[in-house]
Amino acid sequence: MDYKIDCLQYANWSEKIFLELREGGLDAVHVTIAYHETFRETILNLERWYGYFEEYHELIFQGFSASDISKAKKLGKTAIFFGFQNPSPIEDDIGLLEVWHKLGVRFIQLTYNNQSLLASGCYENEDMGLTRMGKEVIREMNRLGIIIDMSHSGENSTLEAIEFSQAPIVISHANAAFWHPAKRNKSKSVLEALSRNEGMIGFSLYPHHLKEGSNCSMESFCRMIYDCAETMGIEKLGIGSDLCQDQPDSVVEWMRNGRWTKSKDFGEGSRESPGFPEMPSWYKGNKDFEILAQGLRNVGFDVAEVANIMGNNWFHFFEKNFN
Amino acid sequence: MDYKIDCLQYANWSEKIFLELREGGLDAVHVTIAYHETFRETILNLERWYGYFEEYHELIFQGFSASDISKAKKLGKTAIFFGFQNPSPIEDDIGLLEVWHKLGVRFIQLTYNNQSLLASGCYENEDMGLTRMGKEVIREMNRLGIIIDMSHSGENSTLEAIEFSQAPIVISHANAAFWHPAKRNKSKSVLEALSRNEGMIGFSLYPHHLKEGSNCSMESFCRMIYDCAETMGIEKLGIGSDLCQDQPDSVVEWMRNGRWTKSKDFGEGSRESPGFPEMPSWYKGNKDFEILAQGLRNVGFDVAEVANIMGNNWFHFFEKNFN
Repeated sequence: MDYKIDCLQYANWSEKIFLELREGGLDAVHVTIAYHETFRETILNLERWYGYFEEYHELIFQGFSASDISKAKKLGKTAIFFGFQNPSPIEDDIGLLEVWHKLGVRFIQLTYNNQSLLASGCYENEDMGLTRMGKEVIREMNRLGIIIDMSHSGENSTLEAIEFSQAPIVISHANAAFWHPAKRNKSKSVLEALSRNEGMIGFSLYPHHLKEGSNCSMESFCRMIYDCAETMGIEKLGIGSDLCQDQPDSVVEWMRNGRWTKSKDFGEGSRESPGFPEMPSWYKGNKDFEILAQGLRNVGFDVAEVANIMGNNWFHFFEKNFN
Repeated sequence: MDYKIDCLQYANWSEKIFLELREGGLDAVHVTIAYHETFRETILNLERWYGYFEEYHELIFQGFSASDISKAKKLGKTAIFFGFQNPSPIEDDIGLLEVWHKLGVRFIQLTYNNQSLLASGCYENEDMGLTRMGKEVIREMNRLGIIIDMSHSGENSTLEAIEFSQAPIVISHANAAFWHPAKRNKSKSVLEALSRNEGMIGFSLYPHHLKEGSNCSMESFCRMIYDCAETMGIEKLGIGSDLCQDQPDSVVEWMRNGRWTKSKDFGEGSRESPGFPEMPSWYKGNKDFEILAQGLRNVGFDVAEVANIMGNNWFHFFEKNFN
């Protein structure tokens, strides 16, 4: 059985997109339900998802375990797994981790660009590594089976998390810095440490993470994956598209600025192009998911290898690491 | 298989009491996790329970469905089901019902003595019945499979809830007013309407609900149950002890006053005896649960009838009405 899984999206969810998930054949998606939200605000986001599950129950349902992905495949639906890009929904209260786990949260980033209570983000000048609370939170996430995601963390914090965690961690959405040296892409030492500890990376299609941005070719993207296979091993690779389908620019402003600054931070953008970058012509949304399989075949992966990168690897990772 | 179930307790939980639950042979208990707490405060109470489940995992675990009671019996543990005595943890947000249902809350009282956003409490002078939000909340509780509990509601509100709800409701902890006409005990018309709509009552051992209070005899209590069997049918009867084992008097003050008054309300007590009343000599705590079976035998119930009242009736009710 082959599964198709996208390990990171933050779309402006609608019936149209849920239909496109089905068109793209996605059995499971990890969706972000918080960037900077407090506990209570994230509960409101969750309530919105309960509304989607009720209204679009023929297309989607909430996933809690890997077996829900098999169930989704059988039913012709997409299992939706929740995650946070920032630990803000646990505030300063470690007990909230178990509450969120019960509510189905399966991924939490220890930081989103900035310093958090747990670790340093990739935009800080100083990267202090794991904080005291950060270590406690990792222990508790390990106990519960919530996956630690370091996509937006600093290098030092990421390496420390890989070492400290008893369970493998993930970089759910980023690419290799050797291909495109963006702040958000990962160094060889991070990729190697991640792989050594049985972690996984999801390759991102967000243009700021791509060589030549919106003009990046599918061939170049897939060649980068091929090179990563040599560094990390094929079984450590998946997709984490970082697709922000149909989001208005106000959302990227929220992602970057939250409530932490009075001036405007442009993150990976700039004053000249402050909005969401245009997606590459060959990847506009969920219905294009399948196209990646052909791109991967073209650079030399065989059919089974492609199927593993397109979802089976994530499936096995979820199976092993969710509780 | 016979089950032993207590459908309402608010003990000052400790290892000692968890051991006594086992001594009393209780397979399941419905425990109150909120009186006047907000959403966030109730989450903190939940976190405390997660701590108990972790520390005392050999004695207790959280129950979500009736099958967890069978599981508890097999394992020699007690399944703990959560409920609120006040709808305060849903605040003004109907979406929180599904969040709480996912977290395992299975009973919610629409009011606790006072007027709530949903209905009138039994201590209000005017009983306006169900509010606009009250009706919406009942519909949503019906959809989710959360049980409506009217133990602390006014007569009119209770009768309206019985009629309006698509699912049977409960009075988890109260007695018959024809036996002891306390404000919290229920009239014949409420008992009859409850029974007509497949609802259930749990008989309370809280002294203010007992004829002659702390001096009430077990025989008198069991005779009242026998009389209720004639009014309601045996299958509608269970136990809801309202046991507040080991609670300090500050807790009964919180139950009565919450944050709603600057003066002191004595509820069922009085200025002269403001604390918890003394329990009857024959029922001091969970380890005495079994004793009720003998009391019920003595007033004329047969063995099977006693077993049904001691827990099987609740089991079947949970089986039918939890989702």
